[in-house]
Amino acid sequence: MKKIDKLVVCGVGLIGGSFALALRRAGLVKRIVGVGRRPEPLEAALQLGVIDEVSTDWAGALDGAELVLLAVPVGQMDAVAAAIAPHLGPDTIVTDAGSTKRDVIEAVYRHFGAQLANVVPAHPIAGAEKSGPTAARADLYQRRKVVITPLPENDPASVARVRELWAACGAVLHEMSPQEHDRVFAAVSHLPHLLAFGLVHDLAGRANAEQLFSYAASGFRDFTRVAGSHPEMWRDICVANRHSLLAELDAYLSELAYLRALLVEGDGPALEAVFDEASRARNIWADKAFPVSPSGE
Amino acid sequence: MKKIDKLVVCGVGLIGGSFALALRRAGLVKRIVGVGRRPEPLEAALQLGVIDEVSTDWAGALDGAELVLLAVPVGQMDAVAAAIAPHLGPDTIVTDAGSTKRDVIEAVYRHFGAQLANVVPAHPIAGAEKSGPTAARADLYQRRKVVITPLPENDPASVARVRELWAACGAVLHEMSPQEHDRVFAAVSHLPHLLAFGLVHDLAGRANAEQLFSYAASGFRDFTRVAGSHPEMWRDICVANRHSLLAELDAYLSELAYLRALLVEGDGPALEAVFDEASRARNIWADKAFPVSPSGE
Repeated sequence: MKKIDKLVVCGVGLIGGSFALALRRAGLVKRIVGVGRRPEPLEAALQLGVIDEVSTDWAGALDGAELVLLAVPVGQMDAVAAAIAPHLGPDTIVTDAGSTKRDVIEAVYRHFGAQLANVVPAHPIAGAEKSGPTAARADLYQRRKVVITPLPENDPASVARVRELWAACGAVLHEMSPQEHDRVFAAVSHLPHLLAFGLVHDLAGRANAEQLFSYAASGFRDFTRVAGSHPEMWRDICVANRHSLLAELDAYLSELAYLRALLVEGDGPALEAVFDEASRARNIWADKAFPVSPSGE
Repeated sequence: MKKIDKLVVCGVGLIGGSFALALRRAGLVKRIVGVGRRPEPLEAALQLGVIDEVSTDWAGALDGAELVLLAVPVGQMDAVAAAIAPHLGPDTIVTDAGSTKRDVIEAVYRHFGAQLANVVPAHPIAGAEKSGPTAARADLYQRRKVVITPLPENDPASVARVRELWAACGAVLHEMSPQEHDRVFAAVSHLPHLLAFGLVHDLAGRANAEQLFSYAASGFRDFTRVAGSHPEMWRDICVANRHSLLAELDAYLSELAYLRALLVEGDGPALEAVFDEASRARNIWADKAFPVSPSGE
């Protein structure tokens, strides 16, 4: 596979940093330039060997770049696209790691009119409850899914290049439409995050919060793990995907209204039927998706 | 510490089986008799060395018993209490491992009029998403909390004996009123279980359930881990503690109504404030409660 002479990573946190480390470990990149809003993560990424140099100048950073990865919170994608579009060479490929796709693609259409052939939207599905360059790992994407949502305007060669680089990071490639992507991840990722943030927020505001937390055990720990995630990143995802997320939240509120009615009636058999169906579905899925449970116990 | 000549464990699953194994490992029990509804778990417990013998006869099982642990789903406590009360000796101590306490204590008052001095309600806080005697472990209670909710009628010596036996299993003892117990665990345990069962039930019933589950990742795995729990056990807990659980569910529905309004308005700053508060509270708690995270990643 052809090496990348120059890779530009915009946002050198867990996602961007791990992409850089994985390509470096695969021997597929000669030079990695980091760009970002704040100097501290860039300095940390430099010292950790995640990137080779820091740039504060878009024109210089993008000059001769073969690939640009945008790994910033999705709320920043519009500003970043606006900033880089004037400096992109005709052969530079741009991809992103945004957790939502319709909003990112809207920003792409707003700013990359001339370069749409080479702008390939994507989303690596990798847990991000730890953030920052110190959390980056060369093996983060091993056996993880990366969803590509190609544009009709994309050059198939650019899509193939993005696919092969993610595959070199160990990822398993999938393709979906942006609409389908945003609906699916509203259900299995964005809603659980919102629900976990909400539960912890509710309890943390109680007068007896300290007592409540002192009796919370491993079930609570796992249920709320995603509530430890990066607040700005999740603000952006929830705002960007709020239409799909609201549809999922409303479906869930209907489910809770049903369960609430069963509790009011003390309807044990109906509650057990729900729990039994959920328990079977969850365990069948988990045994298949995580053959050796990394959650221990 | 004085050895138990004869321990009777009613319900030889994860909770009862682990208590038996822990006391045996501590060298504190001479003979363990298992009792239960179904022969299969009892046979398995016998073959695994969790118990020394199986009894199908309450009078024989309880004859000369020093301690009886009731480790059955809370919905069975009433029937079990009714069955054992006539056969209890004057010095036999009874304790339970029910996840709810007010309903268990109501059953205790219904059936143990003469023996209330020796019936000490308790609740070991140990993850129970795996069930059955094969899941039992001698170290399950190491550094786990056990909440005792003593009755006014309890003999202090009986309470002390129950406490010292749980302490010998490695547990850390706490005391609460049954009312406080049921409110606290509705918030930090029963509600998260209900929410996780509900989410998986909602998604599993969709036409595209298979697609949704195929894109669910480690965040979903952890959020839904408790939805893999024992349906009958959780039916009983939810029915028994439905008043406290409904209060917690309604508080949570208010929280979700607030988050829903923020999503409708696309109010990023307010969403971020919620997420930031939740994230800080969750991470401070988790770092303190689980100094080295066993969830990996």
